[in-house]
Amino acid sequence: MGIPNVDKPYKHRFTCRVIYGDTDNMGMAYHANYFRWFEMGRTEMFRALGLPYREIESRGVFLPVSECQCKFLSSARYDDRITIETSIDPGMRAGVRFNYVIYRADDDTPLAAGYTKHACVDPQGRVVRPPKFLKKCIEQTI
Amino acid sequence: MGIPNVDKPYKHRFTCRVIYGDTDNMGMAYHANYFRWFEMGRTEMFRALGLPYREIESRGVFLPVSECQCKFLSSARYDDRITIETSIDPGMRAGVRFNYVIYRADDDTPLAAGYTKHACVDPQGRVVRPPKFLKKCIEQTI
Amino acid sequence: MGIPNVDKPYKHRFTCRVIYGDTDNMGMAYHANYFRWFEMGRTEMFRALGLPYREIESRGVFLPVSECQCKFLSSARYDDRITIETSIDPGMRAGVRFNYVIYRADDDTPLAAGYTKHACVDPQGRVVRPPKFLKKCIEQTI
Amino acid sequence: MGIPNVDKPYKHRFTCRVIYGDTDNMGMAYHANYFRWFEMGRTEMFRALGLPYREIESRGVFLPVSECQCKFLSSARYDDRITIETSIDPGMRAGVRFNYVIYRADDDTPLAAGYTKHACVDPQGRVVRPPKFLKKCIEQTI
Repeated sequence: MGIPNVDKPYKHRFTCRVIYGDTDNMGMAYHANYFRWFEMGRTEMFRALGLPYREIESRGVFLPVSECQCKFLSSARYDDRITIETSIDPGMRAGVRFNYVIYRADDDTPLAAGYTKHACVDPQGRVVRPPKFLKKCIEQTI
Repeated sequence: MGIPNVDKPYKHRFTCRVIYGDTDNMGMAYHANYFRWFEMGRTEMFRALGLPYREIESRGVFLPVSECQCKFLSSARYDDRITIETSIDPGMRAGVRFNYVIYRADDDTPLAAGYTKHACVDPQGRVVRPPKFLKKCIEQTI
Repeated sequence: MGIPNVDKPYKHRFTCRVIYGDTDNMGMAYHANYFRWFEMGRTEMFRALGLPYREIESRGVFLPVSECQCKFLSSARYDDRITIETSIDPGMRAGVRFNYVIYRADDDTPLAAGYTKHACVDPQGRVVRPPKFLKKCIEQTI
Repeated sequence: MGIPNVDKPYKHRFTCRVIYGDTDNMGMAYHANYFRWFEMGRTEMFRALGLPYREIESRGVFLPVSECQCKFLSSARYDDRITIETSIDPGMRAGVRFNYVIYRADDDTPLAAGYTKHACVDPQGRVVRPPKFLKKCIEQTI
């Protein structure tokens, strides 16, 4: 586990495509789908940090979303390549907060910016303190 | 449990709306979403038969989809009221097969027709024979 | 058009079910899907006010989501009946803001609370002032 | 446009991950989501053939899904890497039919197999013969 010496805060980038199933009647990506892309962003960030989210769960720690927000700046359209830039918010005490900016990859136009907050819970759903292995993983990014 | 004497085969009808989140760039409902409506149809049919699917699961029986198909006849569009007509196929030996027709509710235009086949599995995912309580529920419709 | 004399602010209620397709691996509704329910809430509120959103669009006015947020208080689970309570925020100057609370219908447990902000745009996507017919519709609720 | 001399029929492969938002209460990918993956498969195949679907539409040709089917062989689970293998069916006269097999990428277990049939329509939604540029693109694969 561990990312090499990188500029802090660490910003992870992941790129994917807008598919037909993501779009709506107005010809743009349906707003709820940005939260799917946020999920892809944080999942791939965890993987890049050497700690896949699946492994976090297998150690008995779950990170359900407790709050999420997104501001829409410009429209993502069908077949656009989008880049999800994910970083971990240094200000959170309990739980974890991820910040995201989504860009159109071809011209770097920012399309959306938002965050997700996550509680740390055990398999019974009780809120717990973030375990050491998770804190260590997070701290290397901020 | 039990539906009163009705014409056989029993056809259950459930109505809902096409939302923006269901539509796509072409201005019609995205094809994958019809399978969500099929799910609503069979779930509400089970409930109408006095055996909510949640109860089937609580008795240790699961009905994962093993095959599904849909033919698209005409477009469901934003805010259309659609009626899902669900019936149980009398021909299945193992598992259960549901047949569906989706109509535009306002003018009864058929929009799509399809089916889902379901295996009967136990909590470990092993295929089992449909238990008596499920067979009894199904047989009253066909 | 017009709702009878009701307590202000007007709170619209709409009830639906959590389907399998809404849930995720954790056994609860996937967070992004709450924004689909928010959409159902505001759409049915507009309809109840005598101004279906489809009609707003047919008059050349679109209300894309410019910002959305949701706080998750308790889990919506498979087959739960949920009630979406929608109201229009009196504080907005430009555009429209809807506030939502989602309850588990059976015991009135609040599950989530959030909002969506909407710009008012013309068919070319340019921001415009809310037209009179829309303001009139909104003002009767607040 | 043009793929180099390859074994016929041409089979295109595209890999992605199963996200939380794709899974359901049973801990596996919700069946309707396989049709999103089928879409990714055919879209990336068209792109690999030098004819992005977006370009097909910009030439006034649309390929709405007229029928789709999927058989589920084994479960795709959270965070699985899946490979979508797409090929064009040589048997279709009018329209286009794509065949798909989805594998778990890590051990090549086949998870699902299915197809989608597509009508060829003009911007007014009328069925038309596949234009030359589309036929040429398709024929190089079969």
